[in-house]
Amino acid sequence: MKIAIGLDIGGTNTELAWVNSKGEILKHLKLKTKNFPKPEQLVENVGNAILEGNNEFSSDKILGLGIGAPNGNYYNGSIEFAPNLGWKGIIYLAELFKQKIKLPTKLTNDANAAAYAEMLYGGAKNMQNFLVVTLGTGLGSGIIVNGEMLYGSTGFAGELGHTVVDYNGRTCGCGRKGCLETYASATGIVRTVNDYLATTKESSTLKKLTNIESKDIFLAAMQNDNIAIKSINYTGEILGKHLSDYVALFSPEAIFLTGGLAKAHQLLIPPTQKAMNKQMLNIFQNTVKILPSQLINQNAGLLGAAAMIMK
Amino acid sequence: MKIAIGLDIGGTNTELAWVNSKGEILKHLKLKTKNFPKPEQLVENVGNAILEGNNEFSSDKILGLGIGAPNGNYYNGSIEFAPNLGWKGIIYLAELFKQKIKLPTKLTNDANAAAYAEMLYGGAKNMQNFLVVTLGTGLGSGIIVNGEMLYGSTGFAGELGHTVVDYNGRTCGCGRKGCLETYASATGIVRTVNDYLATTKESSTLKKLTNIESKDIFLAAMQNDNIAIKSINYTGEILGKHLSDYVALFSPEAIFLTGGLAKAHQLLIPPTQKAMNKQMLNIFQNTVKILPSQLINQNAGLLGAAAMIMK
Repeated sequence: MKIAIGLDIGGTNTELAWVNSKGEILKHLKLKTKNFPKPEQLVENVGNAILEGNNEFSSDKILGLGIGAPNGNYYNGSIEFAPNLGWKGIIYLAELFKQKIKLPTKLTNDANAAAYAEMLYGGAKNMQNFLVVTLGTGLGSGIIVNGEMLYGSTGFAGELGHTVVDYNGRTCGCGRKGCLETYASATGIVRTVNDYLATTKESSTLKKLTNIESKDIFLAAMQNDNIAIKSINYTGEILGKHLSDYVALFSPEAIFLTGGLAKAHQLLIPPTQKAMNKQMLNIFQNTVKILPSQLINQNAGLLGAAAMIMK
Repeated sequence: MKIAIGLDIGGTNTELAWVNSKGEILKHLKLKTKNFPKPEQLVENVGNAILEGNNEFSSDKILGLGIGAPNGNYYNGSIEFAPNLGWKGIIYLAELFKQKIKLPTKLTNDANAAAYAEMLYGGAKNMQNFLVVTLGTGLGSGIIVNGEMLYGSTGFAGELGHTVVDYNGRTCGCGRKGCLETYASATGIVRTVNDYLATTKESSTLKKLTNIESKDIFLAAMQNDNIAIKSINYTGEILGKHLSDYVALFSPEAIFLTGGLAKAHQLLIPPTQKAMNKQMLNIFQNTVKILPSQLINQNAGLLGAAAMIMK
């Protein structure tokens, strides 16, 4: 049996898994990223875990290691200036792992990994052109064109979250204003709710909370809280309107939503699809669907890191 | 010698050429598109010209026919609802030509053809990721990703001109509002000048003209006409600002400008580049140049139609 090893490095958790060609996880380890203040410590520790784990699969063909990480650069196998990881500068992590475990190693960013996962193990199995949009703390995307990941000349292509909705809009972590991710993300919807709460006299169960999270908003919306519903609709409208632009550019078969905010896809997709269709250029009408990721309840980044190697 | 035949069908002129692998035109015919009220008449007439012309190249290997046309669909070999050609509905032109001339025939839209030309014969010879933006009556684009044309699932991908600058902006021929091409195109800059002229008391040589064209604006700008200069700068600012979004999506090595409006690239590129750099996301700073097409004084659509076959 062919096996690929996936490593998903996140701000909080780092997960490691041995995955087969069907996307089944055969062995799974979870670590705290903060236990490795230096990347060399992570390589040493996780590398040893890989070498040890591989012994359990001595009769199988282990193809290599795929790594998904924030600010990952596929071309360089590097993590570049990742504020969430607390590692400084440019770290050539793929090369460090390759030396340690003596197996082919590739690295990509977490949103691209999610797109690899959708392609191999999820809803995009027979698609040549599709987008995966991850709505988490920020908005990431993996864009597949002609069956291949779009990396562009730098390796950083696909920054959908930093295309601009409003040049005078909300300040973004990137230092500019009005980026899509300041509206359409788990963080963005919380900002929207807080904006409404600051200006409305309407009652809302959300007013009682001191630190609102996106899941609180969905729970409130299910109980018909008007502020929560308005905030979800507003998020969907902005996202959908701008997705119509990306359809004009990429003409994908489907757009898959994933990440924390997408877990409430029953509430989020209808206003998003409606806004997208309303704004869509004629020739693209009815050519594209917005779908929840088929892997939405799994760690798509982890599966995708393995899928990149399996592919 | 290998030869490809290129056919460029425009609203006014239809051009036919036999092109070698260096992009040299060996034989060239020009026809009036209006002489063919029905597409079958064009196929009959141009088809006969091709069969006759091929006799001159009997010792060469003629690879086939490439067609560039407005609203061309690569997948279907069709021209679909092209208002400028006066032909109705969907016309499967590639198939009609194939039957007539018994040679492999492909069809694409005119902006994609320009991108093929830049890739094979122009400034993008060694590039895997680049954009060609044609600033003519509208704004068209050809987008190359991983060395391949981006067609998307429908064949219509790359509609940069119909991504939206301002949802409450200028009405567009597509029925929506504020599309990029209503600002950044030969037609767009004329609208900008007319807007300025309607509201200013400033003197301008352009006030004397009854039917302003983009070239009048450039001539006036060269003579330091302030309205003309302001209009070019405004066009460049809108174009550049939005190109920074497309860089975030595609991360191209270069963006080539072509078409009527780009003939004044000495005036247009500086404000465009400045606005793009100002708005650019950090990681893409200094990764992409805006360049005039190397084929700006040739018929890139015609060369590109041939290049599609040569490739």
